[in-house]
Amino acid sequence: MSNLSLAAASAVDDIRRANLRRLLAPKSIAVVGASADPSKAGSQAMKSLSTFPGCLVGVHPREKEIQGFPCYPDFASLPEPVDLAVLAIPAQHCVKAAADAAARGVGGIFIISGGFGETGEAGAALQAQLAEICRKTGLRLLGPNTSGFINPHNACVASFVPGVDKLPKGNVAVIAQSGGVNLSISFLVERLGAGLSLAVGLGNAVDVGSADVLEMLADDPTTAAIALHLEGVPNGRELFDTLKRVTPRKPVVALVAGKADIGEFAVSHTGNLMGSHQRTVSALTQAGVVVVGSTEDLAQAAVVLAHQRLAPKERNAFGLVTGQAGPGLLIVDGLKSAGVDVPELSPASIEKVQALLPPMTFVKNPVDTGRPGPGFPLVVQHVAEDERIDAVLVFGLSEPAVLDPSAALKPAFVSTGKPIVFGTLGMAEDLVPALEDLRRDGVPAVQSPERLVLSGVALDTDSRAQWRLARLSGEGTVNVGQQLVGPFNEDRSKELLGTYGIDSPGRRLCVGRAAALEAFQQLRKPVVVKIAADDVPHKTEVGGVFLDVRDLAGLNEALDSIARIPTSTPDRVLVEEMAPLGVELIVGAVRDSSWGPCVVIGLGGILAEAVADSAVRLAPLAEEDVSEMLESLRGKKLLDGFRNLPRCDRAAIRKVALALGRLLIEHPEISEVEINPLRVNTEGALALDALVVLAPST
Amino acid sequence: MSNLSLAAASAVDDIRRANLRRLLAPKSIAVVGASADPSKAGSQAMKSLSTFPGCLVGVHPREKEIQGFPCYPDFASLPEPVDLAVLAIPAQHCVKAAADAAARGVGGIFIISGGFGETGEAGAALQAQLAEICRKTGLRLLGPNTSGFINPHNACVASFVPGVDKLPKGNVAVIAQSGGVNLSISFLVERLGAGLSLAVGLGNAVDVGSADVLEMLADDPTTAAIALHLEGVPNGRELFDTLKRVTPRKPVVALVAGKADIGEFAVSHTGNLMGSHQRTVSALTQAGVVVVGSTEDLAQAAVVLAHQRLAPKERNAFGLVTGQAGPGLLIVDGLKSAGVDVPELSPASIEKVQALLPPMTFVKNPVDTGRPGPGFPLVVQHVAEDERIDAVLVFGLSEPAVLDPSAALKPAFVSTGKPIVFGTLGMAEDLVPALEDLRRDGVPAVQSPERLVLSGVALDTDSRAQWRLARLSGEGTVNVGQQLVGPFNEDRSKELLGTYGIDSPGRRLCVGRAAALEAFQQLRKPVVVKIAADDVPHKTEVGGVFLDVRDLAGLNEALDSIARIPTSTPDRVLVEEMAPLGVELIVGAVRDSSWGPCVVIGLGGILAEAVADSAVRLAPLAEEDVSEMLESLRGKKLLDGFRNLPRCDRAAIRKVALALGRLLIEHPEISEVEINPLRVNTEGALALDALVVLAPST
Repeated sequence: MSNLSLAAASAVDDIRRANLRRLLAPKSIAVVGASADPSKAGSQAMKSLSTFPGCLVGVHPREKEIQGFPCYPDFASLPEPVDLAVLAIPAQHCVKAAADAAARGVGGIFIISGGFGETGEAGAALQAQLAEICRKTGLRLLGPNTSGFINPHNACVASFVPGVDKLPKGNVAVIAQSGGVNLSISFLVERLGAGLSLAVGLGNAVDVGSADVLEMLADDPTTAAIALHLEGVPNGRELFDTLKRVTPRKPVVALVAGKADIGEFAVSHTGNLMGSHQRTVSALTQAGVVVVGSTEDLAQAAVVLAHQRLAPKERNAFGLVTGQAGPGLLIVDGLKSAGVDVPELSPASIEKVQALLPPMTFVKNPVDTGRPGPGFPLVVQHVAEDERIDAVLVFGLSEPAVLDPSAALKPAFVSTGKPIVFGTLGMAEDLVPALEDLRRDGVPAVQSPERLVLSGVALDTDSRAQWRLARLSGEGTVNVGQQLVGPFNEDRSKELLGTYGIDSPGRRLCVGRAAALEAFQQLRKPVVVKIAADDVPHKTEVGGVFLDVRDLAGLNEALDSIARIPTSTPDRVLVEEMAPLGVELIVGAVRDSSWGPCVVIGLGGILAEAVADSAVRLAPLAEEDVSEMLESLRGKKLLDGFRNLPRCDRAAIRKVALALGRLLIEHPEISEVEINPLRVNTEGALALDALVVLAPST
Repeated sequence: MSNLSLAAASAVDDIRRANLRRLLAPKSIAVVGASADPSKAGSQAMKSLSTFPGCLVGVHPREKEIQGFPCYPDFASLPEPVDLAVLAIPAQHCVKAAADAAARGVGGIFIISGGFGETGEAGAALQAQLAEICRKTGLRLLGPNTSGFINPHNACVASFVPGVDKLPKGNVAVIAQSGGVNLSISFLVERLGAGLSLAVGLGNAVDVGSADVLEMLADDPTTAAIALHLEGVPNGRELFDTLKRVTPRKPVVALVAGKADIGEFAVSHTGNLMGSHQRTVSALTQAGVVVVGSTEDLAQAAVVLAHQRLAPKERNAFGLVTGQAGPGLLIVDGLKSAGVDVPELSPASIEKVQALLPPMTFVKNPVDTGRPGPGFPLVVQHVAEDERIDAVLVFGLSEPAVLDPSAALKPAFVSTGKPIVFGTLGMAEDLVPALEDLRRDGVPAVQSPERLVLSGVALDTDSRAQWRLARLSGEGTVNVGQQLVGPFNEDRSKELLGTYGIDSPGRRLCVGRAAALEAFQQLRKPVVVKIAADDVPHKTEVGGVFLDVRDLAGLNEALDSIARIPTSTPDRVLVEEMAPLGVELIVGAVRDSSWGPCVVIGLGGILAEAVADSAVRLAPLAEEDVSEMLESLRGKKLLDGFRNLPRCDRAAIRKVALALGRLLIEHPEISEVEINPLRVNTEGALALDALVVLAPST
């Protein structure tokens, strides 16, 4: 691309960004298809928008006024180019309207009607035309096939479901693939006593996608946290890169639909090891997102993170003060199960807390105060002041006579600045006033033991993810290697991996028995003899691998057997030194159509494959990524000298995983690479078998 | 035990049961330690109970009247033996008070004060005395160390936390180990628009435990569902037997604290395969309980099951009708991930539904209506009438203008009698009236997509568990075998298993080289040669196992190596035929100190052990139990001909697992038995190694 066209592209990008802000925070709106007939969408749209404080007009071929608002016959006649045009007209008229809107300088359009990509080929064609108009002109398009958006700060209710106009303004933003989920999350946020800065359903997302809105919200001063709902992710790598820029500025919590997804088929086992849901969750996590499992958790975690955020840190220590032992036990259990630290308080803190409480209460952390008494606020204060503690969770059932949550928590929050979250339950009439006081203090309150656990996990996960992101070195420039052409047999695959610093056992590729014999004499015994035919991808399954060959008799037996396997090159064998014992892993990398190069690590063997015990991350990887991937394996015990296995050299595994990521980045023509098994012991890691698959087009 | 003492014991049991009902649904109450001083517990107790409509009196050495209620100096002076005595006196006075209460014929006592087992030895001694009084007299004791109970139908608020007197009456019962959790769950039930039949916190549970209250509630006409919270379970087998009797009559939902539990150490690998949390969850599930993971899910599932219950069935088919596609996708995803069937509707139903909806909507199941229109009630009706469908879930955001939930769901519920649950979200002001209408119709309403999933899962789990329970044959009488004495080496262990119909490969136990040579000649080659020393429990780890021995040279090599292993019997070896290839499982049984005999099945190999992929059930097992255990293994694919493994004969696995359960029941002196590995292929199952461990006392 020339510098000139680069500059032009950058200018269009600036226009697109500005137009997205105009669309979602409009000062002027036109309703196309505005109607006086109350059964028409155009009438409902005018009605919903009637309280919009900015300029609202209709576009209608004949009417001059609808519901008291002026009407114009077309875009060209509008007195000014409106920020947002709402299209309440049938699908087949939308393309022309979009073109007209773009020509008049409208910022963005929102299409109410369905009948596009979700309905078949004809609709998809319309959608493609809309996309083309947007791409060329910088016009932005929300939808089609969505219930729209609500911007309460702007009093813009561009959504036509009753009740949504009552959603309060606040600092939580919602971005949902689905309009219905957008509203579900928004109602849940309202129920938690919080409000919205923006709530948008993307629908078919022909133009405006989650990455666009995320980028915009990163700069939005009214947004303190973002709740994100995803179904499929067509442009995963773009979303990943966007999120890595957004999450350091605003916490993002996400819910990903499709966990029942079975995963796609791929040539290698690596592909089968990871489903598309796992890929999405892994990529989001890697980009600093807190991933949760339900709309309720999504709303709750976003509301908590909108109040408070922990500074980036490798691990955080939580203090827990509870007025009741039983719920306290559930909370500690939940935190520990999620891997959140609840360490013992410092001796000085324990002494101070002990002085405030009856003997026999448990004070080391959690602090179980028994029924809250007058010393409760000071207990919270001492725990918050403990240098070992990064954040404090407090649980107490509603007892207005003995516990005023604001009086108990605010002093500690104000004096230490550490995040504090209150968990409680009680009759609403008793609770509501107390919780409103707390919210005014900046302390989030959640209603159940498990929601307090969720709050702690969300604060910790967010902080740890940012700590990791901040440590990632810049990705640097990519050395694109010389383009490789196929086919890749095992020997050539290992040779390529060798150039990336990945070791494999000493070996000779031999044609004919004499060559095999010579190789056998040169190599360290015992050896493995394997078929080396390009047309046999799964060597073991055809009986083409002979382990532990120690003498000439064994060698001849192996060569005889291999010679009987049907292949075009029956006399080609690989003679290889037997590797020392160790733990077997499978390490691979695939080029995902959405997320780009991903690295997968799993434990070797068919059980690992059957239980899909694997971890996946997007390349390029940092050392920490691989460490975390290994920690996340259910069978990770095997790496640390389990039973009579050797302890694994984790640095060697890291080196291999990083190299495979780099290989896929530097060689776009490779679609998959797999080392299966990678044998690891205290001495290092050896690729015992390797497979490189080139993309079909190369 | 003589017939006479049996009769006496049964009479005491009857008294205990009657006294428990008197305690928890009293007609008369005495507060011991009643006080005019408002700072005293005895004053708070009188105050909380002041609205009790039955007879309320105080017991005080001097006062004649407190807060307007008559007082008596001691139990003996009471005009009648009250049903419940609330003891608001220090711990050290409670034992005498309990004895006096029992002597006066009081039904039960509830001790407010702490200072018992939870505080150390002196408190534990007091507790033991209380237990002894209860055991001898039939007096019942709630607590100590609990916040008490609430029986709203009886207007009895024997709990002294503000707000609990406002908890409404209803048909959900709560039984919690912890007083604080009891109140947490009760508040959550209230929040869902439901009410309580009884809510009790057991505290130290010296006398009244969960099994007692469960048994009582099974007969309680006001209770429709029971929410159970457990921490530790000291008398697991009693609870298990009770639950098997209770769950067919009333649905029970349970939350078990302690999932971060690490599990106990045991001699065999079997013991390490299952933690105590897993054991509890498995036992409850087997007894027909729906186990959930949070207080919110506990309250929600109990409220749903209190409305409706599916008839016992092997699997249930759910229909889903949704007004919004996005939430519908989350719901189907959740149901499928939980293993709940959402099958395609019958062609006739599809046709009927299609006629009511715009083209292009998805109607096969889920039925996505798009925005609800006038046809919505008929769509629900058609889905409910489909013969393939057992229950219907309906989701729709609150849109009072277009969707009246009661009008949409009630006709289908009334005409088909099938369970129907409504899921929704919206502004409370719009929702509350609509949901109250629905509740009056007997249709539960839940607020979020995931709560609708939970409702479906709870209905299905409950129904399937009852189907399984109903099919279990009576356990019959136990044949106690001749008492076995140790030690058990591999050969003797296999011999014992053989008497239970468990096969193992042909073998000879040999002392000396000549015997081994003779065995080698008689057995089918190749053979395995193993050390057979009672003082070597882990043969492989000392290098005492030689596989694939095919000739005399190999045999001698194996014998030489084994002879060098330090043991008191170096010349004892087991020569055994090599088993054919297959999948390796570990099948064992342990005698749990709480739950009694449990059977464990896991996949073999160290990875399976490292990832703890196992299933556990209490013996005796039914065939269905073993089938479900195998289905629950994460690596279950390995059983069905995965890669180049043979398909496993599941009937053979069932036979082995059932036999191990029977073995532990018939031989109380055995503490553990383990087959590791059990090799299984299409032909059957062979125990390749076996270990029998006797209890230390035998």
